[in-house]
Amino acid sequence: MKAAGRRPGENATREEILVAARRLFAANGYDRTTVRGIGAAAGVNAAMVHYFFGSKEQVFVAALRLPVNPAQMLPALLAGPRERFGERVAGFLMSLWSSPETRPVLVAMLRSMIGNEQAASMMQEFFRTAVIERAADALGVPRFRLAAAASQAVGLMLFRFVIAIEPLAAADDAQIAEQLATMIQYTIDAG
Amino acid sequence: MKAAGRRPGENATREEILVAARRLFAANGYDRTTVRGIGAAAGVNAAMVHYFFGSKEQVFVAALRLPVNPAQMLPALLAGPRERFGERVAGFLMSLWSSPETRPVLVAMLRSMIGNEQAASMMQEFFRTAVIERAADALGVPRFRLAAAASQAVGLMLFRFVIAIEPLAAADDAQIAEQLATMIQYTIDAG
Repeated sequence: MKAAGRRPGENATREEILVAARRLFAANGYDRTTVRGIGAAAGVNAAMVHYFFGSKEQVFVAALRLPVNPAQMLPALLAGPRERFGERVAGFLMSLWSSPETRPVLVAMLRSMIGNEQAASMMQEFFRTAVIERAADALGVPRFRLAAAASQAVGLMLFRFVIAIEPLAAADDAQIAEQLATMIQYTIDAG
Repeated sequence: MKAAGRRPGENATREEILVAARRLFAANGYDRTTVRGIGAAAGVNAAMVHYFFGSKEQVFVAALRLPVNPAQMLPALLAGPRERFGERVAGFLMSLWSSPETRPVLVAMLRSMIGNEQAASMMQEFFRTAVIERAADALGVPRFRLAAAASQAVGLMLFRFVIAIEPLAAADDAQIAEQLATMIQYTIDAG
């Protein structure tokens, strides 16, 4: 991580904040962790945390090295015609899962969420706040249905890319993207 | 496992067959493992394996201690009106996932499939042969779509019962079952 133009010592401070954040998110979950608390644990004030990362969400993304920041990607997915929301999400997810750079990170995240209750709890709070509630409210869709649509997407990516269940594993990307788009759109609209 | 009426030594033989089966399924996958090969590895003939377990599928179910045998449950799910297939599958899956006896086994299976490539490969071959192809062909649905429907089901169960994503985790069973039935039926019919 390059920090051109920053003063010496800033990288060390940044790293201390991330270490404190990882510990607090894991111990207390996403909801009950505050920027102020992270700062205190790292021996800096909240303004310093904001200076380095921005919001709590961004600290979380950096601390857990998430491959995407929902705050950055959601506006683009939510913009545009609602009847093509499924298509936009499918295209986005396929680009993440097809990439040899991001796929291993996503697989590791899934493993950690499924294998570790603490990780599951922390990620579910983050995912609910940063993705599900925000997208559901913006689209005017019940959160229950948005969460169900998200679960479909994860299930399909899991079957295709991780467990490699045929004929999903051998299908071409376009066919998977189309299936995913159709499923998401249906669940959002009426499922 | 009780084996009333069997001769002494039968339990030991049965156990040897299961040990050999586990080893061969893991090493060679489901497709390339034969009942004859399992028998040979356990020092018995194929008829003995059939006597104890029945088909290769049943050896697999016993060796991996699967909580359900697809050969036993599929006929009931496939019988009845096709437009209520989603409802039958949803009811069946909810009964498995809601039970404190079977849920831990399903979670362990998912963990193993996601965390271990060998387990994933073996399970995907079994799942494709014993569930997806059989159900798709019986319903006259493309296997791709049947597999997509199965992935949705696993995704929803994962979100509700393992990662516990809200509001899915807090919803009542009936609401989840209804959502699952709707999604599966749509994907089978048209998705």
